[in-house]
Amino acid sequence: MESIKNRRTIRKYKDKDVSKELIDRLLETSFRAPTMGNMQLYSVVVTRDVEMKKRLSPVHFNQPMVMEAPVLLTFCADFNRFVKWCEESDAIPGYDNFLSFMNATIDTLLVTQEFITLAEEEGLGTCYLGTTIYNSKQVIDILKLPKLVIPLATITVGYPGESPAQTDRIDFKAIIHDEIYKDYSSEDIKSIYNDKEGLEENLKFVEDNNKKTLAQVYTDVRYKRSDNEYISKLLFDTLKEQGFIE
Amino acid sequence: MESIKNRRTIRKYKDKDVSKELIDRLLETSFRAPTMGNMQLYSVVVTRDVEMKKRLSPVHFNQPMVMEAPVLLTFCADFNRFVKWCEESDAIPGYDNFLSFMNATIDTLLVTQEFITLAEEEGLGTCYLGTTIYNSKQVIDILKLPKLVIPLATITVGYPGESPAQTDRIDFKAIIHDEIYKDYSSEDIKSIYNDKEGLEENLKFVEDNNKKTLAQVYTDVRYKRSDNEYISKLLFDTLKEQGFIE
Repeated sequence: MESIKNRRTIRKYKDKDVSKELIDRLLETSFRAPTMGNMQLYSVVVTRDVEMKKRLSPVHFNQPMVMEAPVLLTFCADFNRFVKWCEESDAIPGYDNFLSFMNATIDTLLVTQEFITLAEEEGLGTCYLGTTIYNSKQVIDILKLPKLVIPLATITVGYPGESPAQTDRIDFKAIIHDEIYKDYSSEDIKSIYNDKEGLEENLKFVEDNNKKTLAQVYTDVRYKRSDNEYISKLLFDTLKEQGFIE
Repeated sequence: MESIKNRRTIRKYKDKDVSKELIDRLLETSFRAPTMGNMQLYSVVVTRDVEMKKRLSPVHFNQPMVMEAPVLLTFCADFNRFVKWCEESDAIPGYDNFLSFMNATIDTLLVTQEFITLAEEEGLGTCYLGTTIYNSKQVIDILKLPKLVIPLATITVGYPGESPAQTDRIDFKAIIHDEIYKDYSSEDIKSIYNDKEGLEENLKFVEDNNKKTLAQVYTDVRYKRSDNEYISKLLFDTLKEQGFIE
């Protein structure tokens, strides 16, 4: 699986369309991912229309790939279709709760990754936009998602117009625990993150942001407590509005 | 990607070990999946020890593959390692909130699916156990997971000892929406689920459970409101105890 080993996020795309047939085929295959009780608790909204992209662009903090990519796919946790089936089948559904949201989230994210893998194997480039859960309310409005549907991930898709360097990963051994979780000592942490902190791009990142350490760039600039707490509240509101929590 | 197209969940395994080298290599490659800001918010606990399997077995409702598979992998959303790094780096982390749980959940499930894909491409068989989030508290105790770590998925892994028929999927077109979500009419629902309801195994399922419709098997037997609500509460308690919500 060389395409996985060599994977890079692609943010620039060629001015070349990706056919509906190809997207359909890749999505159909991705739906082979495992799913809880074969309920298939997901939907995918395909965006190609320029006006729709313009509306979605601010949701994704105006990152340029939203306008540039020929196709955006928004993967949504979806209990609506299944519940409608129950209601049509003389069955009384009980899926308006947090566990059901998590089950649909699992189904949806497994399919999302399966799609990414398939698309990249096919020579396409993708970028995973984490912004979808940051602005879930707006995505729901724009894509007209009904109750029991929550957008989780947007993937931009196109033919690669760049070949960036591969990003670093921490030593895989630091992530794997034998039999029980071995918590990290101060020395472990230093050793695990040492290489990352020493990378030229990260040293520049620290300097550009006027910080003393790379971790401070995360805590003070990129993923701040105040933002995290504010968006947590929004996300809870969305779960309520979409009917997954009371 | 024939291995994805042809995938089946494998619940019976040959009496043949899966080497540590192979598991390590597949996990290392799976860590190439997209990750929020390259934070890699996951850990994997590897279970091979028979005593550990015995302890985990009831958590997974004593499904036989837990004892039979040579290897179980429990994929955990993990902000503990990253927060420890912040604390070692003179940075004040703000990741004890629901958004951070969701970000770690996304990272973790993308890696989980990437591992499944890689393992199956390599000729291994896997089974995704959704039970991990049902009994997260017990998994936390058994695997000794610290705060800011939550188990999300357990995968059993081994060389296939069966070749079951592939399970059905609903028509992929019913899952894909162009530009906006097209909600399902009564007629749509009937058409989407008609084939599934007519499958011999599902007709038998309905009969065995003394139900009138397949959907009733889901709502009244497999995924009942009372269970869903009870486990939702447990899951919220786990999020609190692990420090992701107040």
